[in-house]
Amino acid sequence: MSADSNAPVRLVIVGGVAGGASAATRARRMNEQAEIILFEKDHDVSFANCGLPYHIGQEIEDRDALVVASADFLRRRFRLDVRTREEVVSIDRANQTVTVRRHGVTSGQDETYSQAYDKLILAPGASPIVPDLPGVDADNVLTLRNLVDMDRIKAHVDSGAVRRAVVVGAGYIGLEMVEQLRLRGVAVELVELRDQVLPLLDHEMAQPIEDALHRNNVGVHLGVGLQSISCEGGTATSVCLSDGKKLSTELVILGIGVRPNAGLASEAGLEIGGTGGIAVDEFSRTSDPDIYAVGDVSEPVFGPLGKPMRVPLAGPANRSGRLAGEHAVTGESAAATPVWGTSVVRVFDVSVGMTGLTRASAERCGKEATSVTIVAKHHAGYFPGAETMTLKLVYEPGTGKVMGAQCVGGEGIDKRIDVIATAMHFGGTARDLTGLDLAYAPPFGSAKDPVHMAGFAACNALDGIESFRDSDASLSDVQVVDVRGATEIEKAPLQEAAGAIHIPVDELRDRLDELDRHQPTVVSCAVGVRGHIAARILRQNGFDVQNLSGGATVRNRCFE
Amino acid sequence: MSADSNAPVRLVIVGGVAGGASAATRARRMNEQAEIILFEKDHDVSFANCGLPYHIGQEIEDRDALVVASADFLRRRFRLDVRTREEVVSIDRANQTVTVRRHGVTSGQDETYSQAYDKLILAPGASPIVPDLPGVDADNVLTLRNLVDMDRIKAHVDSGAVRRAVVVGAGYIGLEMVEQLRLRGVAVELVELRDQVLPLLDHEMAQPIEDALHRNNVGVHLGVGLQSISCEGGTATSVCLSDGKKLSTELVILGIGVRPNAGLASEAGLEIGGTGGIAVDEFSRTSDPDIYAVGDVSEPVFGPLGKPMRVPLAGPANRSGRLAGEHAVTGESAAATPVWGTSVVRVFDVSVGMTGLTRASAERCGKEATSVTIVAKHHAGYFPGAETMTLKLVYEPGTGKVMGAQCVGGEGIDKRIDVIATAMHFGGTARDLTGLDLAYAPPFGSAKDPVHMAGFAACNALDGIESFRDSDASLSDVQVVDVRGATEIEKAPLQEAAGAIHIPVDELRDRLDELDRHQPTVVSCAVGVRGHIAARILRQNGFDVQNLSGGATVRNRCFE
Repeated sequence: MSADSNAPVRLVIVGGVAGGASAATRARRMNEQAEIILFEKDHDVSFANCGLPYHIGQEIEDRDALVVASADFLRRRFRLDVRTREEVVSIDRANQTVTVRRHGVTSGQDETYSQAYDKLILAPGASPIVPDLPGVDADNVLTLRNLVDMDRIKAHVDSGAVRRAVVVGAGYIGLEMVEQLRLRGVAVELVELRDQVLPLLDHEMAQPIEDALHRNNVGVHLGVGLQSISCEGGTATSVCLSDGKKLSTELVILGIGVRPNAGLASEAGLEIGGTGGIAVDEFSRTSDPDIYAVGDVSEPVFGPLGKPMRVPLAGPANRSGRLAGEHAVTGESAAATPVWGTSVVRVFDVSVGMTGLTRASAERCGKEATSVTIVAKHHAGYFPGAETMTLKLVYEPGTGKVMGAQCVGGEGIDKRIDVIATAMHFGGTARDLTGLDLAYAPPFGSAKDPVHMAGFAACNALDGIESFRDSDASLSDVQVVDVRGATEIEKAPLQEAAGAIHIPVDELRDRLDELDRHQPTVVSCAVGVRGHIAARILRQNGFDVQNLSGGATVRNRCFE
Repeated sequence: MSADSNAPVRLVIVGGVAGGASAATRARRMNEQAEIILFEKDHDVSFANCGLPYHIGQEIEDRDALVVASADFLRRRFRLDVRTREEVVSIDRANQTVTVRRHGVTSGQDETYSQAYDKLILAPGASPIVPDLPGVDADNVLTLRNLVDMDRIKAHVDSGAVRRAVVVGAGYIGLEMVEQLRLRGVAVELVELRDQVLPLLDHEMAQPIEDALHRNNVGVHLGVGLQSISCEGGTATSVCLSDGKKLSTELVILGIGVRPNAGLASEAGLEIGGTGGIAVDEFSRTSDPDIYAVGDVSEPVFGPLGKPMRVPLAGPANRSGRLAGEHAVTGESAAATPVWGTSVVRVFDVSVGMTGLTRASAERCGKEATSVTIVAKHHAGYFPGAETMTLKLVYEPGTGKVMGAQCVGGEGIDKRIDVIATAMHFGGTARDLTGLDLAYAPPFGSAKDPVHMAGFAACNALDGIESFRDSDASLSDVQVVDVRGATEIEKAPLQEAAGAIHIPVDELRDRLDELDRHQPTVVSCAVGVRGHIAARILRQNGFDVQNLSGGATVRNRCFE
């Protein structure tokens, strides 16, 4: 696809972390003669952004472990001209120069200078959103984006003065901070404006995470916003929420999202996309073909919608940086592949991963989507240590094309998400999932893997046994048949279906007369397996029947 | 693809474990009116074949856990006519009947009877190969295929009489038995005719398994066969190996492979395929369209070669059974997808998985193949608990189409094999692997996953920086440059390259004059990452250079 080159190109890169560092090192590997200048406005380059919460929690003890490659290392190994604490403040596209401001220069030195480029790669990332509220500039109201932020938060915790913390925002960073602060013995209150944690997930799939927070004594405040921060002498002492609650605290972490650092690009007249990031083509080129943009600041193609969108995640940043670095110094590279928003987070003993669209996001985008939910073990159930996972597969009605997946549970949820994300890369369908040849031995999986089971369930639905919509339809207008055993039902009755008819699946064939053949019918069991058998029996006896996807477990939001 | 049916078809199934039980239950779900008769010559149906070794080792304590579905359960839930200890001994295709022999009938009863069928599914599985040697019928020389076998082996171990065991055959079953017997405190000697454990793997990829066996005090005898078994009073007391060694023992386990139980089919004139299994089409139909064959006895399409082959693994058996059961009672189903031989085994603290072709098997099949090997961590290296894995990717030269992969290490090797097997399902290339959007957070992976790294390495090779062949080429005719640091080299010198020139990668640009530009050159480091950088530097300075894939780690067979 691309050969290396000896063209003496001068490449300037703005931003030295995931995308920028990947671009710089790949550019050097592809071209020994290029002059490569890497600007980083902060102190550190190429650090492990995603690891920051874990050093605060001391799960990663060694701070140095977070420095993937120091500036010196990059200079030595890759002959990069690394310039830290130098900020590119403007781009002169006509003359192909950037203006650079030196931070912390001693008096007498020039604060700014001009740097020429042949090719320019913009990788300035994104910045945490800070709401415009009184008190947000208190010394203990903090965001987490780089090592300096991390050191500051950790110093607060290490000082022993933080007994209570408030974390605002229940996204990835917020949840990781909650977990790590609890590990440090801090009492934590989590505040989220939406009515669920991890708003990226379908509502019911976030429930196990919320349960884990409760089990770990985290105060969870959903559907409420941060209204004000009270300070004493520049230090926050409490926050007020929109529901009137007041929480005393010694530390406030803001994790409410990021904003792309696209100002430099927009001031230079580069095209900005519909989601606020820099518009790029398949080679990460902006509307100026000599300027590239990669990582959180850019808008790669989001696979499920086939259109550009910001997807601020480390993996795509690293990969697009690598390709742009290659393209900038050789004139060619493979095209970037769409991103699917594949992500994963661990919250105490529960993990959740996702890829592509959820039912909710599909709806928001006006894409027709349906879904099945299955509950299965991460490896053979008869082998000790099998952990339960709930896997929701979102797909296109009619074609069965996979649009997304969410998986929550313990071990092995990341594997299923990765397998499905891989299938989505190739435009795979639910039928494809049923035919995948996956590795099986009792310690690793099942002959019928959760991915297969989800595919089976979706194909059953595509072939006629529809899944009852698992979140937004009411059970009150249908004949509900609960096919579990009496003790099971007693322990965990199907909520919202007090009038459900109870017939264990094994008795169903002999008790069909107890049901009304003329009513639309929904069958339910614990997780959906017996329900499917029962639905088959009823359908073949003339019923209009659907199976409750995920059974009472998912419907009741009562996960193991 | 397939609707359910009410056709009153009479379906007879031969064999009640993985393929047969899957066929029977799916047939019932698809057709309430079908008459479904399931014959099983042994005592048990639908047991967890793959779990047997783990009950012997008491890792699975509860024997009942291995019974996936009892005959009574299948009768009750699926209205199956389950007939255990009844063996189908012949097929009369013209009259569509089978002759059944009842085992253990009381005198006076007929021993055989005739059973009519409309559709017949053959799922008789395979039987362990027992070599024709004196002593193999001793009461403590055993194979492991079903619960009865398991009970027999476990009784020997439970009796306390087994201090030493000999396991013959270092395939999956053999290795699982070795591990589980060691867990029971038995001294184990492992005997394998080939010169490596797990002969399905490329030679060097089996080394970490062999190392694990040594660490766990297993005697490993490679390249030697079992020559004779000495008995006293019907009990084996020692075995003699082809190298003259004599091993005293109280138990001999034979795990040297399986033979398809295709006799019934071949006697009925059904077509037998090139690897000894029953030939089938994409719907698992044999040469007689009313007769299906599934599981270990059949020959599905082996994806990497695009031709039929026996692949005796549980996953394909379950999936083909399910499809055949559906097709038999409804007349249609999705077509079976090719199988890729995806498999995995845990041997103490090391696990190894594979899919598709190895370099060695590609060569045996006359398929041109090349490969890269990378060494990487299973999750972010800076996050505690990162375990090392070695991943070998086999692909088609020129196109980069993935032909297979092997992965050995600790945690997470199964995930990488599943991702690559999924890519292979779709005909994916190494370039596809580089663009997969996989889930990343520090506890789960890396922004550049091992799958990406393997894809990068393969694409680098496709684009010009070739990987030095990692198993069969000699280093003696090339200029070898070891770019590691002096201490590293001292600790683990690159074997077979005493004359290697040592120049740390960071000094290479300044010391090019020490090398001969006119000699073919191979660079090496610890695992291949610095080697790649060095290879780029040399190539762009006019050298004809290759990078040693996997570095000294893989070349020296000295895995972590």
